[in-house]
Amino acid sequence: MAPFQRMVTLTTDFGITEHYIGAMKGVIYNVNPAAQIVDISNSVHSYDLLDGALTLAQAYSYYPPNTLHVIVVDPGVGTARRPILATCGKYLFLAPDNGVLSLVYEREEAVSVRHITSQHYFLQPISNTFHGRDIFAPVAGWLSKGVDTEKFGEVITDFVRFTAPKPKLAGDNLFKGIVIKVDKFGNLITNITPHDMPQLFTPDPPAFKIFVGKAEITKMRATYAEGAPGEVFAVLGSMGFLEIVTNRGSAQSSIGVGKGSEVGIKLE
Amino acid sequence: MAPFQRMVTLTTDFGITEHYIGAMKGVIYNVNPAAQIVDISNSVHSYDLLDGALTLAQAYSYYPPNTLHVIVVDPGVGTARRPILATCGKYLFLAPDNGVLSLVYEREEAVSVRHITSQHYFLQPISNTFHGRDIFAPVAGWLSKGVDTEKFGEVITDFVRFTAPKPKLAGDNLFKGIVIKVDKFGNLITNITPHDMPQLFTPDPPAFKIFVGKAEITKMRATYAEGAPGEVFAVLGSMGFLEIVTNRGSAQSSIGVGKGSEVGIKLE
Amino acid sequence: MAPFQRMVTLTTDFGITEHYIGAMKGVIYNVNPAAQIVDISNSVHSYDLLDGALTLAQAYSYYPPNTLHVIVVDPGVGTARRPILATCGKYLFLAPDNGVLSLVYEREEAVSVRHITSQHYFLQPISNTFHGRDIFAPVAGWLSKGVDTEKFGEVITDFVRFTAPKPKLAGDNLFKGIVIKVDKFGNLITNITPHDMPQLFTPDPPAFKIFVGKAEITKMRATYAEGAPGEVFAVLGSMGFLEIVTNRGSAQSSIGVGKGSEVGIKLE
Repeated sequence: MAPFQRMVTLTTDFGITEHYIGAMKGVIYNVNPAAQIVDISNSVHSYDLLDGALTLAQAYSYYPPNTLHVIVVDPGVGTARRPILATCGKYLFLAPDNGVLSLVYEREEAVSVRHITSQHYFLQPISNTFHGRDIFAPVAGWLSKGVDTEKFGEVITDFVRFTAPKPKLAGDNLFKGIVIKVDKFGNLITNITPHDMPQLFTPDPPAFKIFVGKAEITKMRATYAEGAPGEVFAVLGSMGFLEIVTNRGSAQSSIGVGKGSEVGIKLE
Repeated sequence: MAPFQRMVTLTTDFGITEHYIGAMKGVIYNVNPAAQIVDISNSVHSYDLLDGALTLAQAYSYYPPNTLHVIVVDPGVGTARRPILATCGKYLFLAPDNGVLSLVYEREEAVSVRHITSQHYFLQPISNTFHGRDIFAPVAGWLSKGVDTEKFGEVITDFVRFTAPKPKLAGDNLFKGIVIKVDKFGNLITNITPHDMPQLFTPDPPAFKIFVGKAEITKMRATYAEGAPGEVFAVLGSMGFLEIVTNRGSAQSSIGVGKGSEVGIKLE
Repeated sequence: MAPFQRMVTLTTDFGITEHYIGAMKGVIYNVNPAAQIVDISNSVHSYDLLDGALTLAQAYSYYPPNTLHVIVVDPGVGTARRPILATCGKYLFLAPDNGVLSLVYEREEAVSVRHITSQHYFLQPISNTFHGRDIFAPVAGWLSKGVDTEKFGEVITDFVRFTAPKPKLAGDNLFKGIVIKVDKFGNLITNITPHDMPQLFTPDPPAFKIFVGKAEITKMRATYAEGAPGEVFAVLGSMGFLEIVTNRGSAQSSIGVGKGSEVGIKLE
């Protein structure tokens, strides 16, 4: 029987053009040549904790129980910010303690976080600028082999967390949210969910207007393909958020707005 | 002995910047933690069925017999377009029924296509906008474990197929084709093959002129490196098509044309 | 017990948008369905031997002993340049004989290089333009299964090597180097190491000025995060080189220079 193994996923902002991810994988395989490593995405926006948190949040729960999710978006690398190992629900998470796990903490019930201090698992010497390679990768390698989490450090409770931006009621039946992501297709993904505005997502919603940039959107559709040529409209996307989209085209190009743009929704 | 397994390849337009592929892989591994998943490319041009078909057609036949090739370029996601499972030659193909398998149908002899209707294999609830995750990935997971193809639905014969654009005779010894792809190097890959114009690809071809944009090309060479500095010339590329290229540079930048551009060839 | 296997890494300039890497992996798996293939990076700058050499040099030594590193940056594909198999230190390297292994030769002691001539391992017919698929991939497949290196051809000693650009003393306490790489974060990675200018990297360095483009840099810091907002400064990066960086931003955008730019360092 094969020994106990944990699958390892990677979510980082290291990109795929340089050696960074290749070096991290080498370190993991050197510790555990039988490791099973999967990229969630290594193209998180540079330094962007919320973008990293969203990417991980949209993928981690589909993995087999006991998967180790490694997320390295780490603008504070080399400073006093701690490396942490979190056990949340069915999964383990390895990350810098900078809030990048906030959406995991928000969603999971039983959260236990350890400050990783067991330096004998680290690569030596430790650089000041690439802990993905020198700390997170070797620790991931040992964890993938089934080493117990308590071997890596003590439980802490003062770990860093932030709250993702939520839509707000901004007047009579007027909600304001933002575009939190623009995907490869040019879909504008907002932070507005059916929980925030249940009426909007009913089979027969009231009349509404969505304001983004200079565009005014009045149609909600079930699928991308239902849109007329050139029409910009709204859908409930697969991330669970309201999306501003266009059929076989880029809503971003059509409207000319991007990440961070304000989205107003007025119900009649 | 390990149980029967099928390798799984992915060809999609989901990109690598978001969580999309990471979520699909999670779903596959959750069904089959021992799955062997390989990316052919997840950077197919958005919504571009021909680009997806070409990418798959240039890679699938190199894989071991019994590989399951999953291709998701799916602008009609959520509509009545069917998910299908095709058995063609030595391989299985999982795709939306929108013609993206046309080049496979064109090339393979024994083609059997099933409409996938066995919803108990799907992820629930099924979103309207991401069947890659909710339908194709879980079905791929089960197929990778060796589940029989007939378990997924009935054979159909009215599956969708299109004909890839072919070069045409457009006058006295004048052929017209198009640029079907520009690759990472800036090579302009046309749809012209030795089958279309055998004379052009002989060791000692007749004099010819190739017209692309404002450029006039009169040289055919065997390799990229035989080109003089700055010279734009033609080669028979590894895809089996005539390519317009330049040595250690980008023909696209040199000529200023792109995908879809007309290519005229005049034999003297 | 599993038979002897070598892990395979890929470093190429083929990009991830086309089928190139997908085809190469298919060929490797077809020879050895149990192969373990890892991408170091397939986004090396097109035709850029030094960029390929640097990418490989920064990753290969982290892999388990006996890993086969395949590097294909091959502007001379199809010409008389030889395919080679190098055994260097703990690793095997498969590459075109164009100098792309120069940094490996520079670093490793016991280097043995073979000219690969055993055509029965190649894919037939061999194209003139894609030896990654037709020569390097099948040879990698067979090597991954543990085939002996001497089966592939005779030892040669006249293999091609180049010297990476080194910084030079250019006047009284004035050194001149270049930017050899700009990474995804916009960090400007120079070719200057602590070996070249030990004084600069001491805990308490003498006053200095670094000239890049129109910028004048006077601060060395230990981590990215120590920089003041908007400040451009220097760090000793994880590649072992002096880097010009900015905290949570792109030094490339701030300064407006790129790869190949001259970097002057004046010690007071």
